[in-house]
Amino acid sequence: MKINPNFNRLPGNYLFNHIAEKVSAFKEGNPDSEVIKLSIGDVTQPLPRGVVEAMTQAGQEQLNSETFKGYGPSTGYPFLKQAIIVHSYQTLNIDLSEDDLFISDGSKTDAGAIQELFSLEAKIAIGDPAYPTYIDSNVMAGRLGHYDDMSQSWSELITIPMTVDNHFQAVPDFDEGEQPDVIYICSPNNPTGVAMTKDQLQEWVDYAIEHESVIIFDGAYESFIQDDHIPHSIYECEGAKQCAIEMRSFSKTAGFTGMRIGYTVLPKELVIEGQSLNAMWTRRQPTKFNGTSYIIQRAALATFEPEVKKELKDNIVYYQRNAQHMVDAFNDARIEHYGGVNAPYIWLKTPRDLSSWEYFDELLQESQVVITPGSGYGANGEGFMRLTAFGTYEDTVEATQRIVETYYK
Amino acid sequence: MKINPNFNRLPGNYLFNHIAEKVSAFKEGNPDSEVIKLSIGDVTQPLPRGVVEAMTQAGQEQLNSETFKGYGPSTGYPFLKQAIIVHSYQTLNIDLSEDDLFISDGSKTDAGAIQELFSLEAKIAIGDPAYPTYIDSNVMAGRLGHYDDMSQSWSELITIPMTVDNHFQAVPDFDEGEQPDVIYICSPNNPTGVAMTKDQLQEWVDYAIEHESVIIFDGAYESFIQDDHIPHSIYECEGAKQCAIEMRSFSKTAGFTGMRIGYTVLPKELVIEGQSLNAMWTRRQPTKFNGTSYIIQRAALATFEPEVKKELKDNIVYYQRNAQHMVDAFNDARIEHYGGVNAPYIWLKTPRDLSSWEYFDELLQESQVVITPGSGYGANGEGFMRLTAFGTYEDTVEATQRIVETYYK
Repeated sequence: MKINPNFNRLPGNYLFNHIAEKVSAFKEGNPDSEVIKLSIGDVTQPLPRGVVEAMTQAGQEQLNSETFKGYGPSTGYPFLKQAIIVHSYQTLNIDLSEDDLFISDGSKTDAGAIQELFSLEAKIAIGDPAYPTYIDSNVMAGRLGHYDDMSQSWSELITIPMTVDNHFQAVPDFDEGEQPDVIYICSPNNPTGVAMTKDQLQEWVDYAIEHESVIIFDGAYESFIQDDHIPHSIYECEGAKQCAIEMRSFSKTAGFTGMRIGYTVLPKELVIEGQSLNAMWTRRQPTKFNGTSYIIQRAALATFEPEVKKELKDNIVYYQRNAQHMVDAFNDARIEHYGGVNAPYIWLKTPRDLSSWEYFDELLQESQVVITPGSGYGANGEGFMRLTAFGTYEDTVEATQRIVETYYK
Repeated sequence: MKINPNFNRLPGNYLFNHIAEKVSAFKEGNPDSEVIKLSIGDVTQPLPRGVVEAMTQAGQEQLNSETFKGYGPSTGYPFLKQAIIVHSYQTLNIDLSEDDLFISDGSKTDAGAIQELFSLEAKIAIGDPAYPTYIDSNVMAGRLGHYDDMSQSWSELITIPMTVDNHFQAVPDFDEGEQPDVIYICSPNNPTGVAMTKDQLQEWVDYAIEHESVIIFDGAYESFIQDDHIPHSIYECEGAKQCAIEMRSFSKTAGFTGMRIGYTVLPKELVIEGQSLNAMWTRRQPTKFNGTSYIIQRAALATFEPEVKKELKDNIVYYQRNAQHMVDAFNDARIEHYGGVNAPYIWLKTPRDLSSWEYFDELLQESQVVITPGSGYGANGEGFMRLTAFGTYEDTVEATQRIVETYYK
C-alpha cells in the first residue's frame, strides 16, 4: 500500500468547511438574506494602530539591505520570546527560558503537529466534545484505530466524557489498564466555554505525573478568563513543567486570526522515558518549519506595548459584553446553556430535542443565523450548539433574539 | 512505548544549526574577525518598494472593521492563486485551477509535511546528496528504518546516487523488486546546482506513470534557470499531472525568506490506488494549518506587478553575477565544480582530499569563510562543499579569492 490509509477513516469534511458549504448554498438560493454568523471563532474587531504601525515599520526595514531580514530563527526571534516570558508568564510567577518557547504560525499548526512526538502505540485521551484537530491529526497518523458508527467512538481512543452530568468538566477517572499516555485538555474549553479551576487542573497534573503521561494544554482562550480561581497557564499548577506542553495563540488574545502567530511551551523539565520533549521539538522545528514571518513577529511584539494592550483589553471587553448578553438572554428565557463567562463560547441545548444539524438547518433557513452544531465536536455534543461572542454587538443582540424565539414558537 | 522512537535515529542536529553553532563559537574566540557566509541559502537583497507598499496597504486595512481580515481560506486567497496560475503557469502553457493550488507558509513546511500522504510502508527514493528535510521528515515518521554507519545508508530508503560519475544527474534505474512509490526530485538541484533537462525529467515522469509512483518535485530555484532546455515546472513534461506534486516558494524568486510563503500544486489528475491526493491534501490542510497571513499573501501578490517583477529580476541577475564570478574563478583556477549556471548553488570539490568538515573547519579558521559541508547532504556529498550565490557581490569576490588560495597553498 502506497497511500496513507488513515485519511479514509476521517469524517469526509473538516467541520467548518462543511458549515461554509451549507451557508454558501443557502446564500445562493437566498441572495437577499442577511445571514448572521456566530459560528466560526473568528474575531471581527480591527487591529490597534500600534500593531499596524509596528508592521509598517518592520516592512520599511525590508527596503534597506542593512536592516533587511532573511531567514530568522526557526523557533522565533528572541525579542518576541522575551516579551512573552515577561508579559505572559512572569506576571503569573512562572519562570521560562527562551529555549522553552517555540514561536509558530498559529496554534492549529502546533495542535496538529504535536502528536508527532509520540509513538504510534501511545494511548491518547481526548475530551468529547473537543476541537476536531486533536482527533483528526491523530487519526491521520494512524493512532486512533477505526471509527465505530454504533458506539460513535474510535477503537483506540480513550474518550473523556464531558456531559451535562459532569457539567462538562471531567476528572481523571480511567479504567485500570487503560491509562492514557497523552491527554489533550483545552481550558477555557472549546467548544463548551467551561473553564477548569486551578484545583481541577491540578488533579490532572497530579494524575499525569503519577502515570508519566503528557498533558497537551490548549490555552488559546486564556485572555477571556474573568474569575480569579481559573488558571491562565497550566504552569500555575505544581509540577506541571514535568508533564505539560502548553499552546497559546495571539489569535483570540490580540485579534490576530488573519495574522497567523502562536507559540508552544515545552519546558526542559518535561522528560518522558528518558527523552526530553524539548530536545525533540528543537530538532523537529528547524527540520519542518522555517520560522514565522519577521513582520508578523514584530506585530506580535507590539501587542505588549501599554497603549496597545489597553486597546486589546477593550476588544476583549467588547466580546465579553456579547457573551454576557447571550448568557443573560438565555437565563431570562430559561434556556439550558453553559460557558460564556470565562470564554468566548456559549454551549446551548437545542430546542425540542432537535439534533444539532437539524437545529442548524432550521436556524439557517428560518432565522438566517449560523451557529456550530455541537455534534461536530463529538458524540456528546449531539443536541448542543456552540455560539461565539466574536460578532459585532448589534449582530449578537439580533441573533440572540432570533435564537430565543425558536425555543418558544 | 510512549515517545516516538524515530527521533533517536536522526543525526543529532539539523545541518544548518550545527554550522551556526560552529560559526558562533569561532566568532566568540575571534571577535574582530570578519566572517563571510556563503553557506545558508539566504537572500541578502532588500525587497522592492512595491512589495512593502502592498504590505503597508494591507496593514492599513486591518484598522477598519469593514476591511479587517480574520481567518482566510486555509489553502490561500483566490487573488493570489489566480496570479500564480496566470503569471507562473499559463506562461508555461500549463493549465491549473485554483483548487489544484495550496498556498503555505513556505516550501520547507510542505516538503516536511507531504510525506503524510503516504503509508508507512511506502518505499521512498531520495537522491544522495539531497536537501536534509526530505530524509529527516521520513525518518521522523518511521519510514526509513535505521541508519547503518558502515554503509552510510538507511535500511528502508532507496538511494538515488548522484556522483561525479553521472555528473550529479541520475536516471531512473532501480533493481527489480525495489521500485520506489515516492521519488523526491529537486531541480535545479540543492545542493549541487545541477539542473535536469526536459528530456531527463521526462524519463522520471515516464517511470513514475509506468510504476504508479509519485514524484515530489521541488522547484524552489526555478527563477535561476537560464537555459531554454531546462524546464521551470515538472508539468512541462507530458503526463506529469498524473504523477507529480510540485512545490515552489517565493523565498528565492522574490527574496521572501523572512516573509514565509510558498505553494504546492497537487493536480486533481493525480490519483494513486484510487485515491485523489488533491482530495487528501484538501482534507489535511484545514485540519492542521490555518492559512498564510493575509498581509504576506498581499505582499506575494505584489511580486507579479510589472515594476516589481523587473526589480526582482534585477535581484536574480545580481545573484547570477555572483554565481558566474565563482564559476569563472574556479574554471580559471582549474578547480573541480558543478552547477552555478541554472541555480544559485555551486558544488565544489574540496582540496587535498580533505573531508567536507575538515575543509569547513580549515576555511572558517584560516580564511573566515563559511560554506556548507557537502557531507551534510548525504554520503555522496563527502569531499564536496555547497557555495551559495546569495551574498553581496563584494563578499562573493573576496570569499572566492580566499577559497581559491586554499587550493594552491
